[in-house]
Amino acid sequence: MDISYQLAQLAVQQATQKAEEMKVPVNIVVLDTSGYMKLFVRMDEAFLGSIDIAIQKAKTAMLFRMNSEAVGEFLRPDAAAYGLENTNGGLVGFPGGKPILYNEAIVGYIGVSGGAVPQDALIAAAGSHV
Amino acid sequence: MDISYQLAQLAVQQATQKAEEMKVPVNIVVLDTSGYMKLFVRMDEAFLGSIDIAIQKAKTAMLFRMNSEAVGEFLRPDAAAYGLENTNGGLVGFPGGKPILYNEAIVGYIGVSGGAVPQDALIAAAGSHV
Amino acid sequence: MDISYQLAQLAVQQATQKAEEMKVPVNIVVLDTSGYMKLFVRMDEAFLGSIDIAIQKAKTAMLFRMNSEAVGEFLRPDAAAYGLENTNGGLVGFPGGKPILYNEAIVGYIGVSGGAVPQDALIAAAGSHV
Amino acid sequence: MDISYQLAQLAVQQATQKAEEMKVPVNIVVLDTSGYMKLFVRMDEAFLGSIDIAIQKAKTAMLFRMNSEAVGEFLRPDAAAYGLENTNGGLVGFPGGKPILYNEAIVGYIGVSGGAVPQDALIAAAGSHV
Repeated sequence: MDISYQLAQLAVQQATQKAEEMKVPVNIVVLDTSGYMKLFVRMDEAFLGSIDIAIQKAKTAMLFRMNSEAVGEFLRPDAAAYGLENTNGGLVGFPGGKPILYNEAIVGYIGVSGGAVPQDALIAAAGSHV
Repeated sequence: MDISYQLAQLAVQQATQKAEEMKVPVNIVVLDTSGYMKLFVRMDEAFLGSIDIAIQKAKTAMLFRMNSEAVGEFLRPDAAAYGLENTNGGLVGFPGGKPILYNEAIVGYIGVSGGAVPQDALIAAAGSHV
Repeated sequence: MDISYQLAQLAVQQATQKAEEMKVPVNIVVLDTSGYMKLFVRMDEAFLGSIDIAIQKAKTAMLFRMNSEAVGEFLRPDAAAYGLENTNGGLVGFPGGKPILYNEAIVGYIGVSGGAVPQDALIAAAGSHV
Repeated sequence: MDISYQLAQLAVQQATQKAEEMKVPVNIVVLDTSGYMKLFVRMDEAFLGSIDIAIQKAKTAMLFRMNSEAVGEFLRPDAAAYGLENTNGGLVGFPGGKPILYNEAIVGYIGVSGGAVPQDALIAAAGSHV
């Protein structure tokens, strides 16, 4: 099943609420299971450079059906997967991209960028179960 | 002044309500006055090919601070502006991209795609005054 | 439902058989319903320039869930949709891209290029019901 | 001599059979000696992100007529070939891309991605002699 507009709104609502509590302005994107954009919000004062980072984090998670930082393990210099990061138009391997689960199935992917990396990860986690 | 998240939500809310009344599933994007994405929604069943069209319509409107179809006048074959459509990464010159007005000032741009062109134009118009 | 490897093989088998009967060497691609490549074959002697055309025809069909030539109606100069062809990384609006039907539902898209346009269309049609 | 459709099918058949035995769903591509795609298959459940990796591995092998991991030796940080990985639209220097031999001559290249790196290498090897 692919994410509905309604569930995507719920994921973004949960994530923006967390971001507001933490007072961290971020960009949040929801992609469907094929990587097409379903919903995107840029909170006021969020970095312009984080728009693309949020999208790329979610896309990286989608391409391998795992958290963006799990893909990042293969991007470490000592993983010796030379050039992997340049595939698929560029991979982003640090926290903030996650599958969105609904009834224990992946229905989409969320990407968050704008705060410190652990903050992005917490905000993404807040939107990862709908 | 650049569009706030709150006003962008209002624009999208007005446009999606119109689209739902018309039973036309569309993609709707709000860009700020520099063309950076502020808000995006893809309604259920909207064409995947219309994601990029909605964004390009709004971007074209932003680049020249006018409706996308007004830019289209310069893209007509008889306008003899050879190659203009290939500038700026591609211009889209048909209805569905519009400035968003707030207190008679432009605060952002809306782009809509997914229905017939006149439908897209009506839906964009619904979100063009906040 | 998205196309299985088995059904994609069946579609390509039907299309290549038709192409062999017609003695027209072509490129044939099968995309899933999101546009990701599932299967591709280049018959011996098929034009190298037709690899990308076959893929773009199928992608255009996928983006709007219709035959590539139906999208082409909107790309006609008198349709006045200026710049539409440059969206989505380029649209291809002539025959040879079609939905693949299985139990009356779209499960993927086929794109064919290498022969004259009516030949490509016939070959694509041969692979469009599995 | 460049690879025929028949030999490409044989290479893919050998590789998919190995992948099925190993229960590893992968993407497999066969390129001709100039790097043009001849055959591509995505097995069910293979990662979408591995489509491009498989193609890039085979392309890297083709560009230098050697295994992708042999090119990778020049991509190591201590090889000091700064920026090499960004040439040719991106090089991929880890196992899974190999020449395809027929009568001891290179007739094409195979690229495999979707499993762990040693698995990809084994599956590519299975399709590298026809």
